[in-house]
Amino acid sequence: MSDLDVPALQRRLAEFAAARDWGQYHTPKNLAAALSVEAGELVEIFQWLTPEQSARIMADPDQARRVEDEVADVLAYLLQFCEVLGIDALAALDAKIDRNEKRFPAKGGGHPME
Amino acid sequence: MSDLDVPALQRRLAEFAAARDWGQYHTPKNLAAALSVEAGELVEIFQWLTPEQSARIMADPDQARRVEDEVADVLAYLLQFCEVLGIDALAALDAKIDRNEKRFPAKGGGHPME
Amino acid sequence: MSDLDVPALQRRLAEFAAARDWGQYHTPKNLAAALSVEAGELVEIFQWLTPEQSARIMADPDQARRVEDEVADVLAYLLQFCEVLGIDALAALDAKIDRNEKRFPAKGGGHPME
Amino acid sequence: MSDLDVPALQRRLAEFAAARDWGQYHTPKNLAAALSVEAGELVEIFQWLTPEQSARIMADPDQARRVEDEVADVLAYLLQFCEVLGIDALAALDAKIDRNEKRFPAKGGGHPME
Repeated sequence: MSDLDVPALQRRLAEFAAARDWGQYHTPKNLAAALSVEAGELVEIFQWLTPEQSARIMADPDQARRVEDEVADVLAYLLQFCEVLGIDALAALDAKIDRNEKRFPAKGGGHPME
Repeated sequence: MSDLDVPALQRRLAEFAAARDWGQYHTPKNLAAALSVEAGELVEIFQWLTPEQSARIMADPDQARRVEDEVADVLAYLLQFCEVLGIDALAALDAKIDRNEKRFPAKGGGHPME
Repeated sequence: MSDLDVPALQRRLAEFAAARDWGQYHTPKNLAAALSVEAGELVEIFQWLTPEQSARIMADPDQARRVEDEVADVLAYLLQFCEVLGIDALAALDAKIDRNEKRFPAKGGGHPME
Repeated sequence: MSDLDVPALQRRLAEFAAARDWGQYHTPKNLAAALSVEAGELVEIFQWLTPEQSARIMADPDQARRVEDEVADVLAYLLQFCEVLGIDALAALDAKIDRNEKRFPAKGGGHPME
C-alpha cells in the first residue's frame, strides 16, 4: 500500500487537465463515458480467459503492466468525474458499505446474484 | 474531502465479502465485468442528457443520490479487483500521471482524442 | 429463424421514435452510449456465473426472457445508431468477415487473444 | 440496404469460428463480455465529441471506417451470442417493439429517461 492519497491524486489530475485546457471536454457525461470505455478495456484483457487463468494474470509481466495501466485509467476518470461534480468517492463508498451491511446480513445471506 | 482512506475501505470490502463467503465469485474476470456493468449504470444516468444538463445533475437530489450510489459501486468493484490481484491502485495512477506528463506536454498539446 | 428482416425492423424503430419525437435524443453519441449500457445489462446477467452455468442460462424461463429482452435492446440501439448514420450493418459485418478470413487463416491460427 | 440476411451471416460466423476451433472460447458469458467491449470501443470514438460533431462523424473517411468496423464487431458478437443460445434476435426485437408500443403510447408519452 502506498501513502498516496485520493485528494492529492485528484488535485494532480485537475492541474494536469487545466494545464492542457481539457476542462471543456470534461463534462460529467463525457467522463462517465470515458470511465466505461476504460472499464471495457480492462474486461478485454480477461474476455477469453478461464476463471483460473484470470486469477494468474499478474504472473505475466506484460499482462500485469496492462492490467495496472487500465486500473489507473479507470481510477483517473472516476476521480475526475467526482471532482467535476463535487462527490467524495470514499465517503460514498463508506456509506454504501454501511447500507449493504443491513441489506445483506452476514449469516445465511446468499449472493445478491443467486 | 473525507479522511477515510483506500486501504481501510479495501479491508472493509474484503471482510464484507469473506463474511458472506462471496470470495468464490470474486475472480478477477468477474470483478472486471462487474466494474464495467456498474460503469454502464453510471453512463445510463447521463445517456439522454445534453452536456449542459449533465453538468447540473447534482442539483436534483434523487439524481445526485443515484450518481453517488453508482460511484460507490464502481469504486467498490475497482478496489476488490485490486485486492484480489495485489494491485496498489493509487500507486498505479500516480505512475500513470507521471507517464502522461511526458506523453502530453502542457504547451501545444492538443487533446489525445483530437 | 424468422423471416423478419433488418430493414423492416429499422423502419419500425425509426417510425416508433418519430411518433414520440425522440429524434432529438438520438444523436450517434447518445445511441452508442445507450448500446453500451444495454450490453452492460446483458453482461450483468452472466457476471457471477461459471462458464458452465452461463451455457445453461436458457433452461431457466425467467433468465431466458431477460436475456432475450437485453438482446432486443442491444439490437434496437445498434440499428437506430446505423439508421441515423446511414450505415448498412449487415454489409459492414460481411466486409469484416472477409477481412478476418485473411487476417486469421483457418490453419494454425490461434485465437486473436492468445 | 444490402440483401444480405442475418441467418446467412450467422452461419458464416459459426463456420469461421469452427474452422479455427474457437468454439471453446465462445461461452455465452465470454461473448456477452466481448460484445460489451466492442460497444465500449464504439463509445470511445464519440467520447469527447459534442452532439453536433458526433452527427457529422461519417464525413471523415477514417472515422467512418472506424465506426463501421466497430458496428461490424458489435453485430458479430451479438449474432454469435444468439447462435450459441439459440436466440432469434430479429424475433426478439420484433416482440420488444410490440411491447414498447403499449408501454410508451405515441401521444403525450415523454421519453423513458425524462
